[in-house]
Amino acid sequence: MEAEMEQQLAPLRARCKEQGDLVRKLKADGAPEIDVKKQVQELKNRKKELEDMVLKLSPPDNFDRAKMTDLIKRRFFYDNSFAIYGGITGQYDYGPMGCDLVDNMLAEWQKHFVIQERMLKVNCSILTPEPVLKASGHVDKFADYMVKDVKTGECYRLDHLIKQHFEKKRADKKTTNEEKEALDRKLTLLEGMTMEEMNKIVKEYAMKSPLTGNDLTDAVEFNLMFPISIGPSGSLKGFLRPETAQGIFVNFKRLLEYNQGKLPFACAQIGNAYRNEISPRSGLLRVREFTMAEIEHFCDPDDKSHPKFNQIADTEMILYSGCAQMDGEPAKKMTIGEAVHGGLVANETLGYYMARIHQYLIKIGISPKKMRFRQHLSNEMAHYACDCWDAECLTSYGWIECVGCADRSAYDLGQHTKGSGVKMCVERPLKEPILVDSVVAVPEKGIIGKTFKKDAKAVQEALLSLSSDEAEKMDKALNDSGEYQLNGFKLTRGMVPSFKREQKKVYVEDIVPSVIEPSFGVGRVFYALLEHSFRVRENDEKRTYFSLPAVVAPIKVSVLPLSNNQEFMPFTSQLADALTELSLPVRVDDSTGSIGRRYARTDEIAIPFGVTIDFDTVNNTPHTVTLRERDSTEQVRMPIEEVPVTVRKLADGKIKWSDVTSKWPKFTAQETTK
Amino acid sequence: MEAEMEQQLAPLRARCKEQGDLVRKLKADGAPEIDVKKQVQELKNRKKELEDMVLKLSPPDNFDRAKMTDLIKRRFFYDNSFAIYGGITGQYDYGPMGCDLVDNMLAEWQKHFVIQERMLKVNCSILTPEPVLKASGHVDKFADYMVKDVKTGECYRLDHLIKQHFEKKRADKKTTNEEKEALDRKLTLLEGMTMEEMNKIVKEYAMKSPLTGNDLTDAVEFNLMFPISIGPSGSLKGFLRPETAQGIFVNFKRLLEYNQGKLPFACAQIGNAYRNEISPRSGLLRVREFTMAEIEHFCDPDDKSHPKFNQIADTEMILYSGCAQMDGEPAKKMTIGEAVHGGLVANETLGYYMARIHQYLIKIGISPKKMRFRQHLSNEMAHYACDCWDAECLTSYGWIECVGCADRSAYDLGQHTKGSGVKMCVERPLKEPILVDSVVAVPEKGIIGKTFKKDAKAVQEALLSLSSDEAEKMDKALNDSGEYQLNGFKLTRGMVPSFKREQKKVYVEDIVPSVIEPSFGVGRVFYALLEHSFRVRENDEKRTYFSLPAVVAPIKVSVLPLSNNQEFMPFTSQLADALTELSLPVRVDDSTGSIGRRYARTDEIAIPFGVTIDFDTVNNTPHTVTLRERDSTEQVRMPIEEVPVTVRKLADGKIKWSDVTSKWPKFTAQETTK
Repeated sequence: MEAEMEQQLAPLRARCKEQGDLVRKLKADGAPEIDVKKQVQELKNRKKELEDMVLKLSPPDNFDRAKMTDLIKRRFFYDNSFAIYGGITGQYDYGPMGCDLVDNMLAEWQKHFVIQERMLKVNCSILTPEPVLKASGHVDKFADYMVKDVKTGECYRLDHLIKQHFEKKRADKKTTNEEKEALDRKLTLLEGMTMEEMNKIVKEYAMKSPLTGNDLTDAVEFNLMFPISIGPSGSLKGFLRPETAQGIFVNFKRLLEYNQGKLPFACAQIGNAYRNEISPRSGLLRVREFTMAEIEHFCDPDDKSHPKFNQIADTEMILYSGCAQMDGEPAKKMTIGEAVHGGLVANETLGYYMARIHQYLIKIGISPKKMRFRQHLSNEMAHYACDCWDAECLTSYGWIECVGCADRSAYDLGQHTKGSGVKMCVERPLKEPILVDSVVAVPEKGIIGKTFKKDAKAVQEALLSLSSDEAEKMDKALNDSGEYQLNGFKLTRGMVPSFKREQKKVYVEDIVPSVIEPSFGVGRVFYALLEHSFRVRENDEKRTYFSLPAVVAPIKVSVLPLSNNQEFMPFTSQLADALTELSLPVRVDDSTGSIGRRYARTDEIAIPFGVTIDFDTVNNTPHTVTLRERDSTEQVRMPIEEVPVTVRKLADGKIKWSDVTSKWPKFTAQETTK
Repeated sequence: MEAEMEQQLAPLRARCKEQGDLVRKLKADGAPEIDVKKQVQELKNRKKELEDMVLKLSPPDNFDRAKMTDLIKRRFFYDNSFAIYGGITGQYDYGPMGCDLVDNMLAEWQKHFVIQERMLKVNCSILTPEPVLKASGHVDKFADYMVKDVKTGECYRLDHLIKQHFEKKRADKKTTNEEKEALDRKLTLLEGMTMEEMNKIVKEYAMKSPLTGNDLTDAVEFNLMFPISIGPSGSLKGFLRPETAQGIFVNFKRLLEYNQGKLPFACAQIGNAYRNEISPRSGLLRVREFTMAEIEHFCDPDDKSHPKFNQIADTEMILYSGCAQMDGEPAKKMTIGEAVHGGLVANETLGYYMARIHQYLIKIGISPKKMRFRQHLSNEMAHYACDCWDAECLTSYGWIECVGCADRSAYDLGQHTKGSGVKMCVERPLKEPILVDSVVAVPEKGIIGKTFKKDAKAVQEALLSLSSDEAEKMDKALNDSGEYQLNGFKLTRGMVPSFKREQKKVYVEDIVPSVIEPSFGVGRVFYALLEHSFRVRENDEKRTYFSLPAVVAPIKVSVLPLSNNQEFMPFTSQLADALTELSLPVRVDDSTGSIGRRYARTDEIAIPFGVTIDFDTVNNTPHTVTLRERDSTEQVRMPIEEVPVTVRKLADGKIKWSDVTSKWPKFTAQETTK
């Protein structure tokens, strides 16, 4: 069957390779950037064609999004914000289940990354003044193209609109094959188009506003940041931050000092970020308010080895390299050790984080079969990144980017040095001290004092902080013209009669650290996790549930008295209290309804373990109860006082369910929801 | 000494009581509100006079804010945001220490409240559309008075400006006693003044802009919310939320359903909120971006008893009742049981939360001697609150409100019912079913169908959803005039020829729940905690540290090799790894410098336990190390492999330091920082 599938894919793979080779050739020949860009866009399109076919031919996993959405809304994992006021697109409120699941994912993230790797952590302001985001590039470049309905003012993202329009036109029976091909060609080029090219398309196809049929305005660049005015005067412009990373960069000097001036070190931040999407959609995947968890690992640009790389070198991962993408090859399973040593992944530190990301995602319940690391094609990469891999998860929306992992080189610190005038670097000891030529101004303090009076001190300080190059330049200028402008002060030869020249021994050099950045879109990981863990019970398709690992499950254990018989009450409440005492979130369900029906309710909210209090509990000593595991629905019978510690260990992953079944006798009872 | 102090306070207490009695009398006589308000303001002023004197006469605790601030900045607990870009007032970044401390405070908060009380939890949008905050009252009432410098546009909060101006004028030697008295009188009334009254003062005293001497504009009301435009069109107005509570209220129906329709239940939310302060000051106490942790406990308005009240009834707390404030009496220590049963605290649920707040604050390290619960004077209370108590902490800024605890009655749900048109209530079973008169329209479907065509269905539905009162009114109108307007449709007798009257048995009634709201200002609790735990070592005033309880301390344990001798290395790294394995945040300090100096560094960042690896560790078997406790600086000698579990238990509060010293031999060595 796989062979048959490969046969169908072969021509698509060949189409990719053909185009990949063309791109390679153009690059090798030094073709103009615009030509390369167009061909890369065509390459991406063929890749997508291939990928769509792979998904189409893969055995279906029967995932039913409508069923899952129903469960998510019904048990309030998350839902539209402000629904009683009509709701608002692109914003979601997390209910008790969603909120706890995210919190548990993040608690595990902190253990896995922050504590295990002894990272620093910060929590920085979300209201960000404009100069910071000017320096980072967001003010100028963080934009989409937008058009408006000239009458209603309704806004549309232009690329989405063109795509919709073309797809509709393509489906129209009156469209000739020739026209269809033209549409396809243009669709292929859409992602790389300039604003002018898109405007031309709007005119050429006489596109109108889709809801009203009104004319559309010309496109404008719409910056995705939310502008905000800080303070009452209106003069301090700022934005809600579009990512958490910048807060770490602007604190670099404090963090370096905290780390006693040494590299490498990493700093993490979890927090909200905001993007004013033109037309949010795809549920949690494109929203205006979201949580990020980012790490900035600062290291020596000339030494990106990692001391713990060997510990993770054997981790097997599915890697979808840039090369494979260009050749129409599938993603490949390999160890991260092979990938780094073979030069596929740029360096050990980047590889180390990729493996740790992989381990984390599996730990919280992402399916390893529906996860891959895709390397950015060189033109996709932000211009500063040396190498960049996205952890992608397969969902009913296709492969979605959940975690980015990039080597951003010295870009960000460099930008903030330029923007703020504050130097962001680290002193690196030289292997051997070197001699450097030093030129230092020797000022005539008396004259400077008389001439500049209260400014004299500032002038003296400016003279002493001159670099050797600047001092040399000044000496020359004073020789040539007798004058030199320094910070707005006019200096003459008389004020600086001489310059001292000597050789100085230097033991350190200033370097700008490189940054490796793992960046998690928490809402996207959360959503992928829900899809990957959504299950329907065999033989009963109404019984849906989430098979979340105990470590992230919102509630760890349920306590269900068999009926509302008064005799069960003391056992129920004592057990619930004992579980709570161990900080285990517990749910007591003493409502009427069969045990089976109540288990189905606890399954829906992913409670991994359930305890039933029955007549044997009351009548026998030692008092025993049944303990049930959600996924297998297996049950054991065990003494009630053993339950709390056992569940605590299960929830912490210290023991497995098989340890429980091998210790206590199995309990068999038919589970019915009738 | 205390008697002497009381003697000095007696006249001030009497002045309070005199004024308190006057206020009581005015209220009893039904005096006009404006008169009562003025006298209450005078009462508050006398209270402040008394309080200031109490603080002045109390034995000094030698707290040195400058010293603490130095430590906080030097070890990056928190600092001004965006300092490399010149910084920004009212915004702070939390560094590794502050960030972990806040996280640990919140983790403990979740255990103490959310898990122990089995609360629900939500995480709602911060971007909030205008109608939501219109309903809550924030759009109309959440404002301060502001004036501007007419030339520079610099903004000032007018009440602050008047206070400054009066204080300066009062200190002026040229001011006569008569003038001084007038100033005092006005200052007394300041807090209750209208905008017009304040404007009059600006004119009367010819007040100018304090920095430039320019004229000031007339005052305007400045809303403290940050306005924001959601989406690209600019037509969807919103704000950054000014508190987290509204997110819970708008989700009330979902939460009730999640709780299977039953009262009582509580829902918690932790998250950011924003206030665009006109002139932020006092460090973390008045900022523009802050974290809140709020709980909304929904309960039956006619039954505010609490099932666990007995468990906390004996908690002793310092209560500063409204009565005591009016009588010039000091705050009183009493049990919450006495307070509730004596009627001082309005009900058990409110009292239960006050006691739980008290326990929480003590658990994380707030000094019980510097904490009190102050009851709002009735006029201070928001008009919807039945009873409200603030947990206040004494700091170098005086008593500051850290946690509010209010019975808000049905106010918020009522407002959102009005604002959204969605009914927010709970069905309460009646003790006995009652008979109610029911009037139901009996429409003539044929005529309605012919008359209204496609609208016929809407008309039918409107008829069926009429309340009995409305139906009665309609029947009468049709009798009187033959016509009735219903949702814009004109109905005639022919369409509704008759109304069915019957008695119906009803088993439930709709009630709007009451809300009890504990609301934590996390940054304020954090700041008070730092002040309360700041210490200076006896005999060495340069050694400052924070005596934070292990449960909230950012790093739990340090590992210090005696020197950089290679032999220590394997022990250091193995121990550090074993501690990390138990999820204990650990700090290895293998820098040069004496052990004493390194301990001083770990004390500064509040690390409660420290391990030293020395030659006895290397040379003896079993390998032993010293374990040191921060506050007492006591040390014991113990086997290295016992350390991780021992520290884990200490950090979780499962054992005390005295358990450690009674188990292992004391180790004595002089601690020197030389």
